[in-house]
Amino acid sequence: MRTIQVTSSSGEYTVSIGRGLLDSLSSRLQKLPGKERKRIFVLTSPEIWSLWGGRFRAALGTEEPTVLFLPAGERYKRFAEVERLATEMVSAGADRSSLLIAFGGGVIGDVGGFLAAIYMRGIEYVQMPTTFLSQVDSSVGGKTGVNLRTGKNLIGSFHHPLAVYADVDLLGTLAQRELRAGLYESVKAGLIRDAALFRYFEANLPLIDGRDNAAIEKIVAASVRMKAEVVGLDERETGLRMILNFGHTMGHAIEATSGFGVLLHGEAIAWGMLVALAISTSRKWLKPEDGLRAERVIRHFQPPPPPALRPESLLAAASKDKKNRGDQRRFVLLKGIGKAVVTEDVTDAELLAALHTVLQPETAAEQRRSKKRTR
Amino acid sequence: MRTIQVTSSSGEYTVSIGRGLLDSLSSRLQKLPGKERKRIFVLTSPEIWSLWGGRFRAALGTEEPTVLFLPAGERYKRFAEVERLATEMVSAGADRSSLLIAFGGGVIGDVGGFLAAIYMRGIEYVQMPTTFLSQVDSSVGGKTGVNLRTGKNLIGSFHHPLAVYADVDLLGTLAQRELRAGLYESVKAGLIRDAALFRYFEANLPLIDGRDNAAIEKIVAASVRMKAEVVGLDERETGLRMILNFGHTMGHAIEATSGFGVLLHGEAIAWGMLVALAISTSRKWLKPEDGLRAERVIRHFQPPPPPALRPESLLAAASKDKKNRGDQRRFVLLKGIGKAVVTEDVTDAELLAALHTVLQPETAAEQRRSKKRTR
Repeated sequence: MRTIQVTSSSGEYTVSIGRGLLDSLSSRLQKLPGKERKRIFVLTSPEIWSLWGGRFRAALGTEEPTVLFLPAGERYKRFAEVERLATEMVSAGADRSSLLIAFGGGVIGDVGGFLAAIYMRGIEYVQMPTTFLSQVDSSVGGKTGVNLRTGKNLIGSFHHPLAVYADVDLLGTLAQRELRAGLYESVKAGLIRDAALFRYFEANLPLIDGRDNAAIEKIVAASVRMKAEVVGLDERETGLRMILNFGHTMGHAIEATSGFGVLLHGEAIAWGMLVALAISTSRKWLKPEDGLRAERVIRHFQPPPPPALRPESLLAAASKDKKNRGDQRRFVLLKGIGKAVVTEDVTDAELLAALHTVLQPETAAEQRRSKKRTR
Repeated sequence: MRTIQVTSSSGEYTVSIGRGLLDSLSSRLQKLPGKERKRIFVLTSPEIWSLWGGRFRAALGTEEPTVLFLPAGERYKRFAEVERLATEMVSAGADRSSLLIAFGGGVIGDVGGFLAAIYMRGIEYVQMPTTFLSQVDSSVGGKTGVNLRTGKNLIGSFHHPLAVYADVDLLGTLAQRELRAGLYESVKAGLIRDAALFRYFEANLPLIDGRDNAAIEKIVAASVRMKAEVVGLDERETGLRMILNFGHTMGHAIEATSGFGVLLHGEAIAWGMLVALAISTSRKWLKPEDGLRAERVIRHFQPPPPPALRPESLLAAASKDKKNRGDQRRFVLLKGIGKAVVTEDVTDAELLAALHTVLQPETAAEQRRSKKRTR
């Protein structure tokens, strides 16, 4: 087991990564800091609970948790569900001393964290992420929230868990597509700040894709460590933390424009990273050969192609992104493998060209050829 | 004008109390600390805006605010309205640099603060309370939130405003009933921690009830100062801050059981304080003559009688109060004028007796007489 300490302005907590964490849950909870906890509530999805509920209950022993369900899927990450869950908690007698455990993927973690943040103005909670993506990403950083119909994650709070338990045993039941969607987030960690992690990816693609336990534990830990460092240095996303949004500006736009649920979040981010890489190389900030190395690793996991999207629609969707300040277009680009920079001056033309190259390579090539012919 | 500094673990801000604060709004906003603000959003009610919107706009000069409306009334203090308001803000282009001004009574302040707390995980906001109650109470302490159908204020955040402007000129248009409902909160401030304020009430009842400007400014300032002190010492309500709940345990239960909207919040608290006074004197913690003094001031403002309520139903409703920890019944009582104590051991029998005395005085007297006769 590896542990990583996450420090932030509002406190610190430990992320534990390894095997067998679920089975030792009861003794882990007893060792947690904080006030006396009277009752345990679990937020999970029916699917996760049918797979792991029995072992979860057995791990808690005589402490019978109250189980709250949120159906799987981004479309349940919304206000009305938070209200329903809070109402169920009141009915079940949850008070300020209750502990909430978010046991599931990213949606469960985001909704669970937000529910804990606002229930009676804040109760304690623990993250127990069950997907690769949520283990490397959404359980670190204290961001919680829900979507509005006009955009993702527009509502939320900063609220830190007491602890995060990332049990890699739980990843064994993930579908290949879901695992791969998570791996992109780990590739991102390497690209923006950890060249050694990226080289590990390059050298071990079949091992990782074959979900070798040691390889998975290593990349989860490296990704969490990178994110914890960045978040510890800049919790409120005023500076450094912005690099974590590499691939997200266009990723969110691609995800929203495709219709939520068509691409997995991580797959949309994979396409967003390819767009950011195209801009980085076209600016000559990133060497062409490094751009190709990055592209090769991302494409190894075969992100499913998004539906035919008009680059102009994506541009419009990206303007609603909450990372924009006023009318400036902010973008995270690379100046090398492991070296991300935040820039404020990406123009619409630059972005459109990159979108054409990545999403409509044939059209883009055709345009280049016809340009040549007319010269 | 009087200013009171509010200090808390998450920062500090100033409450300004006086006349003409609305007209000088623009220069006040310019002097506020914090980041560059791009856009101003105002959350208000149609009633308040029809009275003061013109002067508000004139005060801002060329800075045209985007106005968001929430209808008056506790029943709009709910999740669905927060979601609607957030969606309107997205459509109107609100980003993280936007400033929200909550301009209205307690519901506007609570919903506005909560909206600011969770919009893009937190934006800056200013409180501009327009009722007596919101000037003395809900604009200090950083508590924000909405109701669930199962109880009041069960959802919320701690999120401090950049500043509070309590313009007593705005109180001139309040209905007498609404002013009086607020005055109880100020009486509470005197009873729990400021004996001088309570004596000022005793000596100046007609002046206060006739809303003399100097008297109103004085009691608003004294009440805010008391609350600011308490909140500064104990933001998270783990100790001292609990005394602010004097009258609230039964007040909330009376309000909820009557049906929201039958009694004003302050009126329900007035009845809750009478219940707490009855327990305090029956325990001999409060001298009978001090109990009578407190009762005389509260009853001077003639709280409308609640509908016929069964004390047993109130007891059940009080068990859902979020101030209870597990199965203990917590209560704030008085050991003297200006001297509140928190106790954990109020029994159901004690509470039932007090409820009978306060809410059904004739039945209680009848029972005492019949008890005597049967001896």
